[in-house]
Amino acid sequence: MDFTDYPGGTGEQTPGAAPGAPIRAGIPEHGRIPKYYAVKTRVAALLDELGEGGLLPTERDLAVRFEVSRETVRQALRELLLEGRLRRAGRGTVVAGPKLEQPLALASYTEGVRRQGRRPGRALTGLDRFPCPPALAPDLGVQPGAPVWHMERVLLADDERVGLESTYVAVERVPRLDTDFEPDSSFYGYLHDRLGISFGDADERLETVLATPREALLIGTPPALPMLLIHRLSRDTEGRPMERVRSLYRGDRFSFTTHLGTKR
Amino acid sequence: MDFTDYPGGTGEQTPGAAPGAPIRAGIPEHGRIPKYYAVKTRVAALLDELGEGGLLPTERDLAVRFEVSRETVRQALRELLLEGRLRRAGRGTVVAGPKLEQPLALASYTEGVRRQGRRPGRALTGLDRFPCPPALAPDLGVQPGAPVWHMERVLLADDERVGLESTYVAVERVPRLDTDFEPDSSFYGYLHDRLGISFGDADERLETVLATPREALLIGTPPALPMLLIHRLSRDTEGRPMERVRSLYRGDRFSFTTHLGTKR
Repeated sequence: MDFTDYPGGTGEQTPGAAPGAPIRAGIPEHGRIPKYYAVKTRVAALLDELGEGGLLPTERDLAVRFEVSRETVRQALRELLLEGRLRRAGRGTVVAGPKLEQPLALASYTEGVRRQGRRPGRALTGLDRFPCPPALAPDLGVQPGAPVWHMERVLLADDERVGLESTYVAVERVPRLDTDFEPDSSFYGYLHDRLGISFGDADERLETVLATPREALLIGTPPALPMLLIHRLSRDTEGRPMERVRSLYRGDRFSFTTHLGTKR
Repeated sequence: MDFTDYPGGTGEQTPGAAPGAPIRAGIPEHGRIPKYYAVKTRVAALLDELGEGGLLPTERDLAVRFEVSRETVRQALRELLLEGRLRRAGRGTVVAGPKLEQPLALASYTEGVRRQGRRPGRALTGLDRFPCPPALAPDLGVQPGAPVWHMERVLLADDERVGLESTYVAVERVPRLDTDFEPDSSFYGYLHDRLGISFGDADERLETVLATPREALLIGTPPALPMLLIHRLSRDTEGRPMERVRSLYRGDRFSFTTHLGTKR
């Protein structure tokens, strides 16, 4: 299914807007438009001409072309970078491809990325064992103080760092996680194939947050990049609490899709 | 169900972190932490002490207390505002309440907000009739050029502006939208009660985007606030294309929840 925006849908990307569209693109009711935003709109049009992977002219060239200061150009490019319409490539800046569409489903990150023809990967940043804090105990179905694993992994797509995942699971459910599990592989695959545990259902909450300096460092994003954060609480097919996961995805690289029926 | 974060879950909000947590909150691997971020962490702790609605000291007071420049304090407060942990109130800044949790469901915005004890409202910013662009035609099940409505409304919760909704629907489905429909009421309620049209299913895509100057103006947010954008394509119970909706929600005020089963 096609979610491409069309004239009138997102004015800021289509200055022409739709025939009869109520207000011209990006132009506030009082008629004034910030200079940087006018430049952003013109650069966005240029990106469409260049196409994915196209090399953007330098800040200086753009400043000359649009007859504005380099600072104004920089502000426009900064927003286009944060929105994922541009990306740094070596010493230049190129037109980015579309965001990855990840289904909101029990399917693992691994499956979701594969479905889009990208090569999923994960890089372990830490695996720890600690006494379960009271707030976490009910989520994992253990007593406070019972041993739990905290596994943190950077999410990769074709070797590009795109997210950060923290998994909390009771040691009693996965006793040999530290010795038995290949951190670059799918945790869900491991649970299913090695322990015969299948996921039944999960509750999720999705929000946008800013990357912390540490997260930005681990994921290699500009500081304060808007991220999509998904909190997941999942249960196995018997309804037993399974894991709590905190998944952080680059807001400039991911979108999430879901199908809604009337039956909830 | 409780999605509250606990120590170790989101380090940036809990400097103490969890017993055995791998890395201390917000501290990059190389051990350095930006000055503004150290201030942000201390202000965040202060917010927890003050509690919802508590009045934040002035920038000057905070600069003196933390022995940093006002610019450093300003950067820390800016992020806390963008994240929705602070909000402007009159001439002061106060501790914000939790984000509204909106279920990802066919239920309308109206129902979702009511469910949380808030009073939903909508303010019409524009209703237009124009020939359907080719890209939109299949979404609405009409021929290109057929008349379609574009209705844009600011979303309100207890009179606070929290989002912006653009609805596209074929005129043939809703002939008297312009004369018959009270723009402050629920569109889904109108379709059901007046036209006997019930929603069957929908596809949605959710992403984070930056507010455009016009959107920021209409919603009354700081410019470039991260927003949650939901594209919806819905069909009625007979599977006929119904509407296309573009819903923009303040990222600092909303989160979205969903329940996942294995059956997709």
